[in-house]
Amino acid sequence: MPRDKLKVIMKPLSSEMKAIESVINRNMSIVQPPLDSMLRCSMAGGKKLRPALIVLIGRLFKSNRRRTHILAAAIEVLHSATLIHDDLIDDSSLRRGHRTLNATWSPGATVLAGDYLLARSVSLIAGLNEPRLLSILAEVLHTMSQGEIRYHYSAECKREKAVYFRSIEAKTAALFSAAARMTGVLAGRSRREMDILGLFGREFGIAYQVVDDILDITEAESRLGKPSGSDLAQGTITLPVICHIERGNDDKLINKILSGRGTVGDTRKIIRLIRKSGAIADALQEAGLHARKAKRALSKLPAGTANESLRELIDYIIARKH
Amino acid sequence: MPRDKLKVIMKPLSSEMKAIESVINRNMSIVQPPLDSMLRCSMAGGKKLRPALIVLIGRLFKSNRRRTHILAAAIEVLHSATLIHDDLIDDSSLRRGHRTLNATWSPGATVLAGDYLLARSVSLIAGLNEPRLLSILAEVLHTMSQGEIRYHYSAECKREKAVYFRSIEAKTAALFSAAARMTGVLAGRSRREMDILGLFGREFGIAYQVVDDILDITEAESRLGKPSGSDLAQGTITLPVICHIERGNDDKLINKILSGRGTVGDTRKIIRLIRKSGAIADALQEAGLHARKAKRALSKLPAGTANESLRELIDYIIARKH
Repeated sequence: MPRDKLKVIMKPLSSEMKAIESVINRNMSIVQPPLDSMLRCSMAGGKKLRPALIVLIGRLFKSNRRRTHILAAAIEVLHSATLIHDDLIDDSSLRRGHRTLNATWSPGATVLAGDYLLARSVSLIAGLNEPRLLSILAEVLHTMSQGEIRYHYSAECKREKAVYFRSIEAKTAALFSAAARMTGVLAGRSRREMDILGLFGREFGIAYQVVDDILDITEAESRLGKPSGSDLAQGTITLPVICHIERGNDDKLINKILSGRGTVGDTRKIIRLIRKSGAIADALQEAGLHARKAKRALSKLPAGTANESLRELIDYIIARKH
Repeated sequence: MPRDKLKVIMKPLSSEMKAIESVINRNMSIVQPPLDSMLRCSMAGGKKLRPALIVLIGRLFKSNRRRTHILAAAIEVLHSATLIHDDLIDDSSLRRGHRTLNATWSPGATVLAGDYLLARSVSLIAGLNEPRLLSILAEVLHTMSQGEIRYHYSAECKREKAVYFRSIEAKTAALFSAAARMTGVLAGRSRREMDILGLFGREFGIAYQVVDDILDITEAESRLGKPSGSDLAQGTITLPVICHIERGNDDKLINKILSGRGTVGDTRKIIRLIRKSGAIADALQEAGLHARKAKRALSKLPAGTANESLRELIDYIIARKH
């Protein structure tokens, strides 16, 4: 069972994951109520994949644990900050089965919450006192916001695979890649190993996001914590949809939904059609391709238990059902 | 004439100010239309006091000009980012005589614009490769967002002077103080001088914001670029209002406006009352106090033309009419 698989991978990391959580909690303690509970709620849940990745890479290189935990906390807080702003930007109302901040609070309070978390993340990174971390942070902040701007405002055709992959690289893979490289910086690794870590994080992130986009089509609301087909209903074209169209299927219904004129019934219908069309298998194949690239990168890093766990994490993100 | 006074101070800085503008423009060139014109428009105007302060402190210490310009660009871009998010948080529709981004664009696009500018600012600072800059940046981001949260969500009484001053310290003075200290970092100054610079920036920022809050009451819409009394109409209690109440004046009308039940006529009426009550003179006296503290800090820094110009800048911010 994929969920159990994650538990198996995470079990030996549990004391480190707890330490990371304490770092996060210590850094949230000064927020005013009611914002504190709102922030804690929005930080809760999730798979904590980024901290897990950082802990495992830290073990790979036998890094200083305390510093690795601070980095992991910083990246998880940064990730939460971007989710909060993204949900506002995309006008999403559900995430992980909970109402998003922007669905409950004013846009202003939502912006503030994201800005606050971003500031906390920068503080944590600053405390590590490593100039290279700042340049990677600056780069990933830029890539993510530039990617969002491009996605929302460029005239490029979103039905092209290249456009889709560029978009998820900026949205998801850039932060995984940054997290991996930053862990390498803390471990004082060579330029060559940093490149390998960056590549591993990037390919891991792409595979993860492709599977996320597949699950949005294949899984039920109860598992997703939001309605199936949310991406399409919100006007986002993901890989399974592109594969569906590329297989020569009629895109009239898709156009209707994307134009905002679609009903809930229309979304349900297109989901059924995509599930049956073979587009899911096509998209999964792409995810598998990137998972293999991530594993190839791992094979160039020190072998051992941590490396094995990272491989298992890759298998998990491909096989998971939510 | 105060405006001419600013021109006189800025004239010898014009080639450096142009160089800073080029750094900013180069760093904005990759944004997609229509966001690029929107960002350029929101960065245009303003008095460019923060870059001017940085250039003058740079001259005080004969710093490397190119690096000083990059820092000035970073701080101006960061300032713009905070204005964009603040206008959304406060739901303001006019700034510097132009419609704010949030008045024209969706909350999402507004958040994105601010995030993008913040990312650019972090990139510029990262490029300077000075770990101390990152810790000051982290500190000021935290102070600003924490201050906004406290202001919007704490139960503390906003009619207390101490609460007002703590609020403007976070909102305005912290960035001036950070800008001054960061310039000191680039110039490799001693701990003692950094403390003096921080104090100077802080007192300068407080004096500046108090006068800004006075002008909101005393000046006409044509000069302000937004209606007089906007702060109060938006529910913000500033120093002139606190001084007015402290003079024993009736606060019924103020309470009505703050509760959101006030009319435009009510705001006009209370403005007339505050203007006549002596509260403006009280508030100006407070501004003068902080201006003198800023000058005292300057007297402990190297003398010369740049130091003289910084003194003149303090006189200007007190005497200005917009």
